[in-house]
Amino acid sequence: MIDNAYYSSDIHQDFDIVSVGRLELEEGGVIEDTTLAVRTWGTLAPARDNAILIPTWYSGTHQIWADAYIGPGHALDPEKYFIVCVNQIGNGLSVSPHNTGDPTIAMSRFPRVRIGDDVVAQERLLRERFGIERLALVVGGSMGAQQSYEWAVRFPDQVLRAAPIAGTAKNTPHDFLFTETLNEQIWSDPGWNGGEYTSHEQVRDGLIRHAHLWGTMGFSTEFWKQEKWSALGFGSKEGFLTGFLEPYFTAMDPNALLAMAWKWQRGDVSRHTGGDLAAALGRITAKTFVLPISEDMFFPVRDCAAEQALIPGSELRVIDDVHGHLGLFAVDPGFIPQVDRHLGDLLSLPV
Amino acid sequence: MIDNAYYSSDIHQDFDIVSVGRLELEEGGVIEDTTLAVRTWGTLAPARDNAILIPTWYSGTHQIWADAYIGPGHALDPEKYFIVCVNQIGNGLSVSPHNTGDPTIAMSRFPRVRIGDDVVAQERLLRERFGIERLALVVGGSMGAQQSYEWAVRFPDQVLRAAPIAGTAKNTPHDFLFTETLNEQIWSDPGWNGGEYTSHEQVRDGLIRHAHLWGTMGFSTEFWKQEKWSALGFGSKEGFLTGFLEPYFTAMDPNALLAMAWKWQRGDVSRHTGGDLAAALGRITAKTFVLPISEDMFFPVRDCAAEQALIPGSELRVIDDVHGHLGLFAVDPGFIPQVDRHLGDLLSLPV
Repeated sequence: MIDNAYYSSDIHQDFDIVSVGRLELEEGGVIEDTTLAVRTWGTLAPARDNAILIPTWYSGTHQIWADAYIGPGHALDPEKYFIVCVNQIGNGLSVSPHNTGDPTIAMSRFPRVRIGDDVVAQERLLRERFGIERLALVVGGSMGAQQSYEWAVRFPDQVLRAAPIAGTAKNTPHDFLFTETLNEQIWSDPGWNGGEYTSHEQVRDGLIRHAHLWGTMGFSTEFWKQEKWSALGFGSKEGFLTGFLEPYFTAMDPNALLAMAWKWQRGDVSRHTGGDLAAALGRITAKTFVLPISEDMFFPVRDCAAEQALIPGSELRVIDDVHGHLGLFAVDPGFIPQVDRHLGDLLSLPV
Repeated sequence: MIDNAYYSSDIHQDFDIVSVGRLELEEGGVIEDTTLAVRTWGTLAPARDNAILIPTWYSGTHQIWADAYIGPGHALDPEKYFIVCVNQIGNGLSVSPHNTGDPTIAMSRFPRVRIGDDVVAQERLLRERFGIERLALVVGGSMGAQQSYEWAVRFPDQVLRAAPIAGTAKNTPHDFLFTETLNEQIWSDPGWNGGEYTSHEQVRDGLIRHAHLWGTMGFSTEFWKQEKWSALGFGSKEGFLTGFLEPYFTAMDPNALLAMAWKWQRGDVSRHTGGDLAAALGRITAKTFVLPISEDMFFPVRDCAAEQALIPGSELRVIDDVHGHLGLFAVDPGFIPQVDRHLGDLLSLPV
């Protein structure tokens, strides 16, 4: 195990580690002790009908949801809903290459985990830990959108509403290749050492290059042109890279990023229907709002709209944000109000 | 000097090496023997009024223009025009870090060259070698567009028509950062050795990663989604990377790519007007067609349109091509017909 301060309660307050036990993975591996980092808000109603699930995105944890999306006055209101945010497997808080106590799956031996494995683990957690068998809403961004789609397709009877934000049900080839370029920044750092480093600091150079790729694809051309970083308190684009993106990613565990990336690249609900995406999305009975971000460079609106068109009774709700994909960080003052309006509309719909 | 077979007449037929002598550079360095690789087509009219200049793009040479853009039946018709394609300084054919015989500027000692330096060298070449003092047209793609804009702003009386394709007059911050990520792939390869490798093969890993970045930013999300590589004879996206983009870039000289990248990052015609882009573009008297590519990920149409709006009497002519920026390779059957139509319209306009 590697001690990495980023994955501590100093940075990530108030979460529980809950094991859902042995998890047999789609790719054939096994995690014997599948620990999930879980944060909850609010109270489960006696009828158990007010539960909202939030799965996390690549590099993300429950903390950004705590900081920006959840609270009184938001659509995700703990006074009305019991909200459960489950950190995805491999994200550094839930069971991950660097934090597992099981040497057979530590570091370079960590097994391949798929989006479906996360959803199976989450379903088990909700049922066994909280007695939740039906979700009022599943909502997530990016890889959280992938998991939201997977929930709606895999467990249609258990999902009343779904809100995938800035993500797709079937990963695109461009996205696969973009993610591969992220991985290559880590793989090419000699300090990565085939996944057998002893501190994430040894992979700092690769993580910095990785952060820079997020600069050009995660934000939009217009973000940089309009110098939106200045509103975040930075004096130059270089200062934004060294003061924001670089510290964000260099704090993280490289193998955690690689584990999530492998999963992200292969997200595909049509695995349930022999590759027929229309058939898979046609199974969705949840009331679904598809929420792309207008300036997203790698989950462009048209890719999300094409999937939305295959979901019965769904709506396309485009979030207007010049920040692009990393608008998910909710740094634009206009971002959360739009999310709140769309999620509020969705939650108010009878199902 | 490093012998690199890519920069030979086996690959690049029929070009001349012409020296324009000593070139004092904007950044303070000097190239004593400024050799330019030049290819011409057609015959200069006695009135010397049928000359067309084509500057080259990042990684490009005159060869792509010979193969795809120039010939009978094209707007760039050697039966009507005297066409001069000048390879940019640092492109591996013109004077470059790996091919100079001057040890004071070889390899890591190669001086910083700006777009304006190229244009000054080209103007001297045209005047001294061919007696050309006025251009019927300057046309180029990407960095060739940067040089076209520089010509029209720096020498307004010498340019009758200009057609910048898929490029900008003032480089955008996003573009600067994207180019930096390309550079980082080379810099991070231990074989690059601070620019003092003895064969470009030593930087192969970095050049492969560099090629992959072109895959995700140079082509468009739609290129990959529509599997446009299949029309180019490849069986998979991976096969297209290993069979097309990787061999293309791994054949090249890393320091040449870095020299061009430095120049690209800093292209800015407003250097002539104290940073006032509107004033710089307002100086243009050439009849100008601005030709962005519809799916370009890093020279988006709106960036080009914003500049076009500042050029008196100009027109915006968007080239529709799902290939994105690397549509410049003219692999889509619909690409060259559009270029021919727009350039034909422009050349037929009285000036």
